[in-house]
Amino acid sequence: MSLLVTGSIALDTVETPCGRVEDVLGGSAIYFALAAAQFGPVRVVGAVGEDFDPRLLQPLREKCIDLRGIEVRAGSRTFRWHGRYQGAMNEARTVRTELNVLAEHAAPLPGEFADSRFVFLANTHPALQREFASRLPRAELVVCDTMNLWIEQERPALERLLSQVHGLVLNEAEAQALTGCVHLVTAGREILRLGPHFVIIKKGEHGSLLVSRDGLALIPAYPTEKVVDPTGCGDSFAGAVMGYLASQGRWDLATLKAAMARGAAVASITLESFSIDALAGCRPAEVQARLTVLKELCRFD
Amino acid sequence: MSLLVTGSIALDTVETPCGRVEDVLGGSAIYFALAAAQFGPVRVVGAVGEDFDPRLLQPLREKCIDLRGIEVRAGSRTFRWHGRYQGAMNEARTVRTELNVLAEHAAPLPGEFADSRFVFLANTHPALQREFASRLPRAELVVCDTMNLWIEQERPALERLLSQVHGLVLNEAEAQALTGCVHLVTAGREILRLGPHFVIIKKGEHGSLLVSRDGLALIPAYPTEKVVDPTGCGDSFAGAVMGYLASQGRWDLATLKAAMARGAAVASITLESFSIDALAGCRPAEVQARLTVLKELCRFD
Repeated sequence: MSLLVTGSIALDTVETPCGRVEDVLGGSAIYFALAAAQFGPVRVVGAVGEDFDPRLLQPLREKCIDLRGIEVRAGSRTFRWHGRYQGAMNEARTVRTELNVLAEHAAPLPGEFADSRFVFLANTHPALQREFASRLPRAELVVCDTMNLWIEQERPALERLLSQVHGLVLNEAEAQALTGCVHLVTAGREILRLGPHFVIIKKGEHGSLLVSRDGLALIPAYPTEKVVDPTGCGDSFAGAVMGYLASQGRWDLATLKAAMARGAAVASITLESFSIDALAGCRPAEVQARLTVLKELCRFD
Repeated sequence: MSLLVTGSIALDTVETPCGRVEDVLGGSAIYFALAAAQFGPVRVVGAVGEDFDPRLLQPLREKCIDLRGIEVRAGSRTFRWHGRYQGAMNEARTVRTELNVLAEHAAPLPGEFADSRFVFLANTHPALQREFASRLPRAELVVCDTMNLWIEQERPALERLLSQVHGLVLNEAEAQALTGCVHLVTAGREILRLGPHFVIIKKGEHGSLLVSRDGLALIPAYPTEKVVDPTGCGDSFAGAVMGYLASQGRWDLATLKAAMARGAAVASITLESFSIDALAGCRPAEVQARLTVLKELCRFD
C-alpha cells in the first residue's frame, strides 16, 4: 500500500552527554521516512528553504524514498531546532527554535501523491493536519501525532482532527495532558472517545502501549545500552509502525502489535547515533535480529 | 522447595486518592507470604509487639502460611508506617514511621526453618540480612531487597551482603542510586559485578527488568485500571516470583521470566484494594487469567 508522510525537515543542533552536532539533518518527516523505508516505499511531503543543501537528502534517495513532495521554497530558510538532553535523556530541553519555512504555509501535496492509502500527519498545527488529510480521499488509514502546544492552545482544532483520524501516536506526557488521566490505559480509552480507533502511547525506554477498540498491547523498548541521541526516536518508531502496516496492507490488532515491535527495533537503532547516521545505515538483518531479541525478552511460559 | 521470608509485619495507615485506612495489616513479610502462598508453602519470620491483634493474621492462616516464626515480643510495640500516595501514585510519601520492634533486634529463626532452601530477605539493615542468611546453610537461592537508606548510609555492609546473595530485587530509583547509572540495563550489569547472579529491577507501572548472567528479560506490568493502593505491590511481586521459583525448584532464566510474569499478575491484584484485602481474596484462576492476558499483550509476530 502507498504510504505518505507529511512533516518537518530540519537542521538540528543537538547536545547530549555523548557530544554535540550542528546543523545536521533532522525533522519528523526525515526520520519517519527512513524508518518506513525499511519496509516499503514511502512518499514525503515537506518544505525546506533556499539554504538547504540538497546533498543532505542523499541517504533518503539511496533508500528510494519518493522526495517529489519536498518543496524548496524561494526566499525562505529551513526550520532549525537546537535541543539539549541531559542525564537519562528522557526529555529534550529546547535551547532555540527557528520555525522559518514552517511558520509560513504547508507544503503542497503533489498530484501524484493524491492516491495515497496510508498517511501519517506528523506534528504540526492540527488545522493544517486536518486540511492536508482532506486532500487524500483514498486514504484507508490516517494517523497523526501532536504535541503539548496544541493540546493546551488549540484544543478545538485538535478535537476536530481527532474525530477524523483512525489513529493517534503521542507520548506519555501528551496523553496525560490531553485527557487529564495519569493512568495510561485510562488515558488511552479517553482518547478513543475523541474519535480514533486506536492510540499508541510512546513511553520511551519503557516501551509503548496500544489502546485500541479491539484490545490492548504492551511492547517493550529494545534495551540498547548505546544511548547517543534520542532525537527522532519517536518519529522513527512511527515510521516503522506505518511502514510495516502499509507493507501488510492492514491494521488489525495483530498487525498493529507486530508493527509496534518493528517500531521499537528501529527506534533503538536511531538512538545509537546523532542525526540519521545509524538509521540510514541500518540493514533489514539488524532490524530482524533486534525483533528476535525483543520477542524472546518478553516471552514467558 | 521450602520457601522462607523474613521481613516486617506492620500496622499501616495509608492515604491514596481512593481513600484512607488506619492501622491495617501490612509489612513486607505479610504481602510477600500471601503472594507466595499462591504457588506453595511459605514460612514467615518476623516480630510484632504486644499490641498486635493476632486475629489480623487469620487470612494468612487460611492460606496455610507457616507463622511459627512470628515472635510476639513482650514489652514492644508493632512497627507502624503512615504513607500518602498522590497523583499517579508512583511513590509513597512517608508521613510518619514508628520503628518500634524493628529498632530492637531481629526475630529469631525457629529451628524448624533452618533447612529452608529458597530464602527472601526483605528490606532491613544489610548486616541483619547477612547475619540471617548465614544461619541457613542449606539455602540454594537467597534473594534480598534493599532501600535507599542503606545504599546511601550502609554501603560497605550492603556490598558485603550483595557479594553473598544470588539475587537482588529493587526498584528503578534504588538501582540508579546503587550504581550511579541512569540506564537500567547498564545499572543491572553493574549490580551483577557486586556479586548477585541476577537482579530484578521493578519499574512499577512500566513492568520489571531482569538482568542476569544468563540474559535479560522485560516483563510488562498487568495494565489494571483499578489502582487503589500501591502499598505492598513490590513485596507481592517478590513473593509471587519466589513462590513460583520455589514451586519449580529452580531459577534458570526461563523460570525467572515465568516467575516475573506471575509477580506482575499478583502485584496487580494487590494494587486493587487497600491492605491485603484483594491479595488475600485472590484465587489461582484470577492469577491464571491475568497471566493469559499478559502473555497476549506482549506477544507479536
